[in-house]
Order: sequence, then C-alpha cells, then structure tokens
Amino acid sequence: MTDSEQSRAAAMPASIRPVILCGGAGTRLWPLSRAQFPKQLASFDGGPSLLQNTVARASGSLFSPPLLITAEDQRFLVRDQVEDGGAQPECIILEQQGRNTAPALAVAAQWLADHRPGEVMLVLPSDHVIDDVPAFHAAIAQALPQVARGKIVTFGVRPTSPHTGYGYIRVDPEALSSGPVVDVAEFVEKPSLDKAEAYVASGAYFWNAGIFLFRAEDFLTEIAQHAPGIAAWAAAAVSGGGADGAFFRPAEDNDAAPIQPISVDYAVMERSRRVAVVPVDMGWSDLGSWNEIWSRSDHDGHGNALQGSALAVDTAGSLVIAGGDTTVATLGLKDVVVVAVDGAVLVSARDRVQDVGAVVKALKETGDSNADLGSVVHRPWGSYQTTDRDARFQTKRIIVRPGGKLSSQLHHHRSEHWVVVTGTAEVTVGERTFLLHENESTYISAGTVHRLANPGKVPLHLVEVQCGTYLGEDDIVRFDDVYGRADQG
Amino acid sequence: MTDSEQSRAAAMPASIRPVILCGGAGTRLWPLSRAQFPKQLASFDGGPSLLQNTVARASGSLFSPPLLITAEDQRFLVRDQVEDGGAQPECIILEQQGRNTAPALAVAAQWLADHRPGEVMLVLPSDHVIDDVPAFHAAIAQALPQVARGKIVTFGVRPTSPHTGYGYIRVDPEALSSGPVVDVAEFVEKPSLDKAEAYVASGAYFWNAGIFLFRAEDFLTEIAQHAPGIAAWAAAAVSGGGADGAFFRPAEDNDAAPIQPISVDYAVMERSRRVAVVPVDMGWSDLGSWNEIWSRSDHDGHGNALQGSALAVDTAGSLVIAGGDTTVATLGLKDVVVVAVDGAVLVSARDRVQDVGAVVKALKETGDSNADLGSVVHRPWGSYQTTDRDARFQTKRIIVRPGGKLSSQLHHHRSEHWVVVTGTAEVTVGERTFLLHENESTYISAGTVHRLANPGKVPLHLVEVQCGTYLGEDDIVRFDDVYGRADQG
Repeated sequence: MTDSEQSRAAAMPASIRPVILCGGAGTRLWPLSRAQFPKQLASFDGGPSLLQNTVARASGSLFSPPLLITAEDQRFLVRDQVEDGGAQPECIILEQQGRNTAPALAVAAQWLADHRPGEVMLVLPSDHVIDDVPAFHAAIAQALPQVARGKIVTFGVRPTSPHTGYGYIRVDPEALSSGPVVDVAEFVEKPSLDKAEAYVASGAYFWNAGIFLFRAEDFLTEIAQHAPGIAAWAAAAVSGGGADGAFFRPAEDNDAAPIQPISVDYAVMERSRRVAVVPVDMGWSDLGSWNEIWSRSDHDGHGNALQGSALAVDTAGSLVIAGGDTTVATLGLKDVVVVAVDGAVLVSARDRVQDVGAVVKALKETGDSNADLGSVVHRPWGSYQTTDRDARFQTKRIIVRPGGKLSSQLHHHRSEHWVVVTGTAEVTVGERTFLLHENESTYISAGTVHRLANPGKVPLHLVEVQCGTYLGEDDIVRFDDVYGRADQG
Repeated sequence: MTDSEQSRAAAMPASIRPVILCGGAGTRLWPLSRAQFPKQLASFDGGPSLLQNTVARASGSLFSPPLLITAEDQRFLVRDQVEDGGAQPECIILEQQGRNTAPALAVAAQWLADHRPGEVMLVLPSDHVIDDVPAFHAAIAQALPQVARGKIVTFGVRPTSPHTGYGYIRVDPEALSSGPVVDVAEFVEKPSLDKAEAYVASGAYFWNAGIFLFRAEDFLTEIAQHAPGIAAWAAAAVSGGGADGAFFRPAEDNDAAPIQPISVDYAVMERSRRVAVVPVDMGWSDLGSWNEIWSRSDHDGHGNALQGSALAVDTAGSLVIAGGDTTVATLGLKDVVVVAVDGAVLVSARDRVQDVGAVVKALKETGDSNADLGSVVHRPWGSYQTTDRDARFQTKRIIVRPGGKLSSQLHHHRSEHWVVVTGTAEVTVGERTFLLHENESTYISAGTVHRLANPGKVPLHLVEVQCGTYLGEDDIVRFDDVYGRADQG
C-alpha cells in the first residue's frame, strides 16, 4: 500500500454506521400507531414494520450494525423487532425523555466518538419509506467523498408535489450542474401552498427528509460551535452513562446545564457552513398522515386503496384498512379514510386527517384505553394479549421469547391454568421446577409462588386461563425479576 | 250469571294469544343483524332483543303465552331468547321454508283452531318497536268488541312523516268520528313521496304496521274464501304435522297443491270485507333501516346519535355505534352511519342505507363469513365462540345451558383442554364420567370419545384450548346426540 493509498483509506471509513432515530410516538396514524405502539413499530402493508424496513435498507456490505436511539419503555420492543428482522444492534441508546433530534444525535455522535472513533454516521428516521433503495445507496456513495472532506451531508428529495408539511432546502440553481453534492444555500420552514408551488416550479428546492451523513467527530465539532450547551450536556451524558447489555443509558440529568428540546435542523443545520445536499429521487415519504398512505397506495378504478377484508360500494377516493379478521364495508362515500384495527376504528374525511392527533387527545381525555394502547402488551420477556374475559375469568395468549423469563410471583385472588400450545415452558410451582411441552398443561392455585420461562430456541406460546374474583394486573407479588422490575407482569 | 252475561263471556275470550312472526332474516341492519342472527334477535340499545321486547309487550293479564313462528335453524335461539326473557312459549311452529306471512298465519290459525279452539290471535311482527305500550294495549281493548263480532282488525299507525317505505291504509274520513274502530276503505302500496305527502296531509291514511287482531276461526274463514289453496295447504300441514317438545313441525310438503309465498295483506286483507282498523299513536317503527335507528335515537347538539365508546369530532347528523370493547372515532363527517360490531364495520352515507342489503350480498359473494355469521355460534345445547386461534391451536368460550348436553364425539386431529370457569360440567372421557367444578380442568386426547353436559341450574361457562395440526369443525365423529343431529358440534 502506498502512502497515498494509506491516507485515502484512513479518510474513507470501512463502513457506514446507521444511526436510527426511533423515539417518536406520533398519533397522526392512530389507530394503527398508538402511544404504546408508535408508527415506526407498525406495518402498513402486513409485512415488516417501518423500523424493520429502515434497518434493512441500511444493511449489507456498505453498513455496520445499527445504533438506535429510543425511549426507555420501548426498548424491548425495539430490540425484538430489530433482532426479529435479522439484525444485531450495535447499541440501543435509551432516552429517559424525548428532547427532539439535536440532543439525541449529539448523544449518539458522542457515544460513537468515545466507543467507535472515526466512524461515518448515516442518520435515519425510523418511520419513513424509501421505495428506490438503490437510488438511496447511490446517493450515499456520491456523498461519501464529501463526508470524507468534512461535510455534513443531507439528502434532498426532489419534490413531486407542493407539499406544505415538509421543510425545504434551497440551493443555488447554478450549483446544481456542478456535481452530485451541492452546498446548501438555506433551510426553509414548512411553506404556504403558494410558496410551495413556487419552490417546486423553481427546481432549486428539495424536501428536507431528515436523513444525514457525516463523521461523528465533524458533527460534534459543529454542535460544539453552534449549540455548545447541547454538546457539553451530551458529553457528560455519555461519559456518565452506563451499558446494560445492548442498551446504553446516558446520564441525562448530568452536571451540564439542563437543555431544552430542539431539532437538529434548528440547532446545527441552519447554522453550519459545512452543510451540503445530495438531490435524490428515491420514492421517499414520511408517511405523515393517512392521506399520505392513501396517495402512496395502489388505487382501484375509483381511486380507492383497500387493505384486508374491505369492500367499497359506490365509494371513491377513499382509504379502507380492515385489520385482522375484521370486515369493513363502505357505501356511498367519497374521500374518506376508514381504519379498523385492534379494537379501534377511525372514520375521517380524507382532507381532515391532519387532525387525527386532536381526536386521539380527546379520546384520551375520556379515559378510553384504545387511545394509547393496543391489545398486545409488550414485556421484556415477550408479550401477552387478553383474548376473552368476563366477571370471573380471563384468558390470555402469552408469548415468551427464547431465553425469556417472567418474574417469580404470586397472585392472591386468582388461580391460573396454563396450556402450552407451541414451544417448551420451564415452570416453577412452589418448590418444583419442570418442563411443560406442547399440548401439556399445569395449574397454579391462588397464593402459590410460580415462575414461567422459555428455555428453548423457539417462541413459547401459552394459553392462560385465570379464574378468580379479582383479575386486575395489580394482583401480583413479585419476588425476583431478571429485568429488575417491581411492578410489571 | 245471567244468560246474557254467559253469552257475552262466550263471545269474549278469556285472554288474547300473541302470535309472533319471527321468521325474517333481513340484512338491512347488517352488521348488527346477520343471516344467522337476524334483526329480531339483536338488541339495538344494549338491553333485551326486539323479539324479547315484542314478547314482553304482549304479556300480562290480557295475554296467554305466545305462539311463535320461526325457521327451523333459528329454533333454539328463539326458544332460548323467549325463555331467557321470562316467558314460556305455548308453541313454536317451525317453518321448513319461508313463504311470507299468509301461509305462516294460516298455519298458526289452523294450529290454534285445532288445539286451542275459540281463541283471539294478536299477530305481531317480532322486529318492530312500540314506545307507548299502554296506547297499544288501549287500542287492543278498543278492538276487542269488534273482534268478538267477527272483524279482522288491523292497527293503523297515524303517520308522522311521508314515509315511502310503508304501505298505507285508507279510511273514509267521515267514519273517523264514528268510533275507535273504522272499516278499511283500501290498502295502498308503498307510495311515491308526492303521494305519501298527500296521504299524510289528508288525515285519512294510516301506516300499515302488520299488526292484526282476530279470532283464528274468522281468519280461517276469510282465507278459505279469498285464498282457498293456502287454507287447504295449511289444514293439511297442521293435521299432518308433529310436535317435538315445545316445537311443532307442519307437514309442509303435504297432499294439498304447493303454494307460493304471499303476504297476508295481498292474500286476505285487501280482499276481505270484514277488515277494520284502529288508528293509534304508539311510537311505532319497523326499524327498517339504519336511518330509522338514527332518527329514533337521542341526538347530541349536532344531530349525532352515539352508542358505546364513540367519539364524534366535527361530525353532524350521524349514527355511530361502537359495539363491545371497540372504540370508534369520527372526524369531519356529515350524515354518515358507522356501525362496528363483532368483527364487522359498516360505514355508509345515511341516505344510502337502504342499499345495505346489496352490500351484504356483495360481501357474501366474496366468501366473507362476516356477511352471514357473527362470532357466536348457537347450538341446541348453548353456544360457542372462538376467542383466539393460530395455526396449531384455538381457544373457545363454550356456554352450555342448564340441562344442555353435547353429542358424544371424538376428534382425530386435536386434543382439548377444558377449564370450567362458571357452573358445573358433567364430563365423560372414555369410560369415565365425572363432575368438573369451577376452576377445575381436564384433558381429552385426540381419538378419545368424550361428552360434555351441564347437569346444573346455572349456565356452564367453559374455556376450551384445542391443540392440533387440523382444527376444523368438521373433524368430529358423532356417536350419540340428544338433539338428533349428525353434523354439528
């Protein structure tokens, strides 16, 4: 290797580190997306979730295992989805509270600088779609030489409509012919329709997709210059934080002065003079509303997009999603959205879907649990779902992941009958521990200490039938929990 | 008692026999009403079903136990609803096929003439509502003297709107002042809106509610005169028919010439010269469409009628029904109907609900089981409902009525775990019969003959967990069935 080759190899990293922002909890796509099961974890086509698709499109020879940033209470769900998608996360940074993208990215960059110095970060929101992944990868390859020269590169999506819900990036029209990567002239806020139309006509404006490529150390330099408070806070958060398996908890309440939520666009991009943009056509959308889902779907001859057991009679311009075994039939409607999933139904005029968040807020105020929760409750060891209930009994389907172990516990007011329907359970009842195989059952009387674990290599599915006079989740006395919890099932 | 008093007592029956027409299977109120669970068996306010309300409004000192006419495959459901409502049916006549109201009433009248001679019949559709029951009873009392004189009395509802979905009854306006019961001048078909408006304005037209009061023998005389084929057929059907507990099966395929479906209005009422009408205001409706349900409901300040966990945001003039634990939220809509019950959702323009039947027909053609079936499957011994399922297991909630007994059976491809959650089960597995109490379980391996019964006084609720590679209902070998079935669970 010549000196010159060595120097180029040092400048160009071996691979790119995907840094996936997975902290959102938007309600604009309720009821498919809920506070406890946000949009990025949902599937919009019956296949992998948006997060899983995001991970998948940043894998392959060009990429290292991903770093993710998410909320504490989503950690197992995020980890499980990434692993179920076939990837092993490098690290999952757990935010104790959401502070928007600038603090989150500052912590991620600091973690990389401390633990994996010299890496290039590809910042990806976890809840977007990109139809043309080769175009995306080609844009990344075009950006890399600029990144090696210290640029902060953003990806500018060539607008296909005068969308008023996105920010825009302006460039000097002359510069567009100079090469694939162009210096940014200006970041522009979400425009009015008039302005958006002018932007699209000009050819010099691109949608700001929130996707960035830069060296972690370059970003830290910029944030230290333009938002020194955040930089100091992030440095303290990472140096004072602690690992917990694949998880990393920053010391968020650290010695640096407290900081306010702020986006990376405001804090860094609009101020930095190192920012360049790669214009790209890649079939991108942020799936920001049901209308967006409708417009990206295949339509029948009347402009309807139908999913699941949906029948649209004399209906036009509508999106109808029937989840699970639910049937949805529409009659004599125009431009509506009907989404029926997991115990909740939204019926909205299509031009009003931007207000779905307000509807969810109003539902929440009525105390309706369907506002925030789906029927599947996620736990560190797996999940459960109540499938039937009455005054004196309740049935649940319990799924325990391979290696998962529930806490040692007892209930005062209910007995439990367990039937293993798939996989193998390791059951402890009182002093006795035994294996329970498919099509075998056992009984745990009220007041008996018991524990359930999956010692096998495949998920354990178990049907639990609870009998008793009080069936609340809070009738639990916990003795020992491998996940360090005191109050969860 | 004087001779004159004796003669009056002979002419006036001791009580009135309600004859309830319970054979309809309309789909205009899908998804609450389905082919296998028709409208009259459904509740529209969370309380008793329309049938139960019909039975209740024809009970008390004025009335004998009801006679019902229904379809063979609804028999247990009808009997159970009547009994659960606290009534004991005098007889349930089972039609092997629906032939509209004239043949049904001819059979009912013939059965009464043969088995309970001299009775007065009150003919009631089972799927209507009457808000003002005292007004209804007062109208019956007014009609009775005319019935004693041989009249066929119908009840004419004073119209509150120019409804084009009802037939009308015309009377001579002069006659209206002569007394509460007026001779009918003419039966009029469902009119155009113009005509209906003129009818309402005239004050001489009443809605034909399909409610009649007459002596069985008088009706048989009229039908013999105006539809002799039906009279002969009904006489042979009843004389050749057979009782089966509370059920009676007419010999429908009898020696008389075959007959065609025809309504009692066409066959008798329009032709008989004995027909009189009692005009009455009693808050009557046939609940013929979702629009009718909407207009009869309490409305909020925006004209919305909401049931269950329903939230209407910027919505007006709409009906929203959220069944069970389902949440429904609407946004930015006007004059729509949303009904979400038991795995099916209808969303319709309110002025299009008369076409719901066509939607159900289209759904049926796609093979969607939600077109005809709800999740609860009714059986002679009770009911069952699948509450969860996957490739290799299925859970059901099984309810066995007191005294109910399933067939002795075996399954080749599945094992069953039974947990009693309420009541007591008598279980036979192989050669052994034993009682299973609340919170006790048992196991039936594939290939083992077994039987379940409820020997107790309260309903038995049992959770069944099936494990196996094939879980279809047709994996059943039946050995002995108290209900004489060969192919049902």
